Amino acid sequence: MKFTATQIATLLNGEIVGDKSITVYKLSKIEEGEEGSISFLSNSKYTKYIYNTKASIVIVNNKFVAEKNISATLIKVEDAYQAFTQLLSYYDQVKADRTGIEEPCFISKSAKIGDKHYIGAFAYIGENVKIGENVKIYPQVYIGDNTTIGNNTTLFSGTKVYSESIIGDDCILHANVVIGSDGFGFAPTNNGDFKKTPQTGNAIIGDRVEIGAGSTVDRATLGSTKIGNGVKLDNHIQVAHNVEIGENTVIAAQTGIAGSTKIGKNCMIGGQVAIAGHIIIPDNVKIGAKAGVAASPKKEGVILQGSPAIEMRNFYRSSAVFKMLPDLKRQIDTLTKKLNQIQNDEAEND
Amino acid sequence: MKFTATQIATLLNGEIVGDKSITVYKLSKIEEGEEGSISFLSNSKYTKYIYNTKASIVIVNNKFVAEKNISATLIKVEDAYQAFTQLLSYYDQVKADRTGIEEPCFISKSAKIGDKHYIGAFAYIGENVKIGENVKIYPQVYIGDNTTIGNNTTLFSGTKVYSESIIGDDCILHANVVIGSDGFGFAPTNNGDFKKTPQTGNAIIGDRVEIGAGSTVDRATLGSTKIGNGVKLDNHIQVAHNVEIGENTVIAAQTGIAGSTKIGKNCMIGGQVAIAGHIIIPDNVKIGAKAGVAASPKKEGVILQGSPAIEMRNFYRSSAVFKMLPDLKRQIDTLTKKLNQIQNDEAEND
Amino acid sequence: MKFTATQIATLLNGEIVGDKSITVYKLSKIEEGEEGSISFLSNSKYTKYIYNTKASIVIVNNKFVAEKNISATLIKVEDAYQAFTQLLSYYDQVKADRTGIEEPCFISKSAKIGDKHYIGAFAYIGENVKIGENVKIYPQVYIGDNTTIGNNTTLFSGTKVYSESIIGDDCILHANVVIGSDGFGFAPTNNGDFKKTPQTGNAIIGDRVEIGAGSTVDRATLGSTKIGNGVKLDNHIQVAHNVEIGENTVIAAQTGIAGSTKIGKNCMIGGQVAIAGHIIIPDNVKIGAKAGVAASPKKEGVILQGSPAIEMRNFYRSSAVFKMLPDLKRQIDTLTKKLNQIQNDEAEND
Repeated sequence: MKFTATQIATLLNGEIVGDKSITVYKLSKIEEGEEGSISFLSNSKYTKYIYNTKASIVIVNNKFVAEKNISATLIKVEDAYQAFTQLLSYYDQVKADRTGIEEPCFISKSAKIGDKHYIGAFAYIGENVKIGENVKIYPQVYIGDNTTIGNNTTLFSGTKVYSESIIGDDCILHANVVIGSDGFGFAPTNNGDFKKTPQTGNAIIGDRVEIGAGSTVDRATLGSTKIGNGVKLDNHIQVAHNVEIGENTVIAAQTGIAGSTKIGKNCMIGGQVAIAGHIIIPDNVKIGAKAGVAASPKKEGVILQGSPAIEMRNFYRSSAVFKMLPDLKRQIDTLTKKLNQIQNDEAEND
Repeated sequence: MKFTATQIATLLNGEIVGDKSITVYKLSKIEEGEEGSISFLSNSKYTKYIYNTKASIVIVNNKFVAEKNISATLIKVEDAYQAFTQLLSYYDQVKADRTGIEEPCFISKSAKIGDKHYIGAFAYIGENVKIGENVKIYPQVYIGDNTTIGNNTTLFSGTKVYSESIIGDDCILHANVVIGSDGFGFAPTNNGDFKKTPQTGNAIIGDRVEIGAGSTVDRATLGSTKIGNGVKLDNHIQVAHNVEIGENTVIAAQTGIAGSTKIGKNCMIGGQVAIAGHIIIPDNVKIGAKAGVAASPKKEGVILQGSPAIEMRNFYRSSAVFKMLPDLKRQIDTLTKKLNQIQNDEAEND
Repeated sequence: MKFTATQIATLLNGEIVGDKSITVYKLSKIEEGEEGSISFLSNSKYTKYIYNTKASIVIVNNKFVAEKNISATLIKVEDAYQAFTQLLSYYDQVKADRTGIEEPCFISKSAKIGDKHYIGAFAYIGENVKIGENVKIYPQVYIGDNTTIGNNTTLFSGTKVYSESIIGDDCILHANVVIGSDGFGFAPTNNGDFKKTPQTGNAIIGDRVEIGAGSTVDRATLGSTKIGNGVKLDNHIQVAHNVEIGENTVIAAQTGIAGSTKIGKNCMIGGQVAIAGHIIIPDNVKIGAKAGVAASPKKEGVILQGSPAIEMRNFYRSSAVFKMLPDLKRQIDTLTKKLNQIQNDEAEND
């Protein structure tokens, strides 16, 4: 997608100083500007970069006055930062604006698909699937039987949705996400091996949920694994069977949540965290990266760190002492020797 | 799939009280019953729920006597819990019961495929592949050249099997599993960069193995990476080149096993565990979640925790003290001061 | 692929002792030799295995003199170890030597693809994609619009490359790798939920980069996420938006690098490491498995371990004391009691 200075100035209600016909096709930071990129200058700390940026266009504040020659075309607006943010959103929107069906793809006769859809090549849509309006199914996506998908939802390439799943409105599932795979449930037999526990529940994803590349949400053994409205999951996250995650909770990459655990609303959970099964995390809890949470925190809003996790403040205090442990051990040994000496002296004195 | 009360009662050898023609299409817990779901009542703790459950059918013990009106249709059986378990297995079996070939798919002329197969659309089957009977290859699966797959094995959508792999009977590989990818082997050169060590071995998966979504099993540099019979791997697990895992060992999500390590039989390994390369884990060892095992445990059946891992009991004892470290440091400082004081006093007294 | 003893002897410039027409199709260790495999004997520690190996062919040094009967055919060369290494590379090369286009695949009309390509079935190549010579695109790969891929690069099955990505020459991306997915960026709103920050940058992968199965590299918010030349990433690795990784840095499986962090050249990073966002790792730093790095190390070449990470030597010293903490606590309690006793005694004596 290429845009001329004129097109952008019209969009941003700005005034062009320079070449009106120059075109750009990507966005850049001013200090990393390249031919064909558009950048912005808002913070005066970066003013020095405008005189030799290679960006083709720079958006500047109306007040900006050049002190030297500038090779880039300028677009003057009231608030350069806000205009650039507007441009970012516009770019993102235009990029995502594709519709139609690419062949070959596989759509079951019983599937129902709303208007303004994009169905990429090699996508698979199973029996009785219901898909809302303005949904984008990228190439090589798999949607199992009886699944429901809301309006304005995007499934990027390689996403696999098992049967009976329910996905809400305005969701984004990134490449190779897996929804509704079997939970990890096995009963030991008398022979020392294991028998699979049938996983007959499903996975339900709320509205406005974003799930990062390669993350997995298992179906419930019975009932539903539930991801609440507004939840944001980063890449490589594991959500086990029967887990529930409350609204607007945000979780960073590579975190794992074991079976049947319930996480509250508005929690913030760092990367590589492990949360044990069958526990309850209250609302507004914060958990630092790499923590291991094996017990239910008692209060809302606590901040945890470490493994086993304790209050973050206490963890960092203890960690500071951890570094000194060899010294402390030596101190203790010395104290013990000295005290024994004193006691021996006393015994002699008696 | 919809079933009538009559169909289910016949299957479970039960007696219907209520509407014989009512239909259900999913299973639920009694406290979460919905129209169209079937539930069960076995534990008397849950009896209260039967009087207002919205489940269409509830399976109950023969002995059950209602004390109030029940809107659900009842199916009376000898043992309601067992009957429900039977129903779960039946449901799972019916759901998986698909056969035939969906078009388009890619099947090499030299591939041999047993009877009663399901080959989904966009599946790829390479040269000289041998596939047993009753195998299900879901859409968008990739099976590289010279691979062998046993009977009754299911490969869910997006699973990628590199060439020369061997997969046994009765296995389940979930969505986006990768088998037989190159091991991580590089030799440093004199230039400071690295030269790839060819990975010419393969990966062998035994019988009755289940592998969770997104897990990876690398091929061996030479010889085979081996997953024993009855092994169960959860999601996002990494098994590096030349690793061997003994029979019936169970490993939870996001655990990684580095190259050439041998894990014994009947081990139980938690989530997010890291096991270093070139070590040996004896049979029946248990490893707690998030442990880091850097040395071979000496005895069978030990229980490990922490990183570096030590016996779990000792780890928790030390962790309890870890929390007190700032206090202990203060105590040591006080002791040192007091002792110095005493020694000074003594010196003065002398 | 089958090879006769004659073919192999010609390739290795060796001399055959035994059956010249015997064929092999795989490589094996001498102690694990099977019919149809070729092995080698170099280290005299393994000489005992040659007398009963089941390998069909064994490569030996010219100097080797058999003391008993050997059933395998021998190929005598100057340096058996080197000859076998040569064979490994040859095998790898032959295996990868496929060209042509398999149908059906999806190639946009605006895409440009160099000579000697392999495009597998169900692969998807978007608008304005530019692909160099001798590139292998395995089945079910997705390449988004405006992406550029260099010469001699291989993308294994299921790899997903988002739009605007740039991948260099001589790269290998293993199955289900994701390049250029959206970074994890959200701004809190006044309602307690989050608004997506558009991710309009891209991901740039240098030359000679290998990326393991299932790993993900997010695109930048603005600008580029950059993986330097010669970098090797193992499986399940997460590289967040705007991260930069310097040349020839090697990272083991399941490690995660948070947003905007810059990693130097020639670093070696273990498995399951977490590196916080917005920090700088200097060149030649080594980080042990499972470490959590939350602050920028000050010097090049340091070796870190633990979480929070400290110098490895110090970490292991402190860990040794960690095991003794319950004992140390008891010692401190005893010291405190004794000292109180002494002070009481003194008080009485005064």
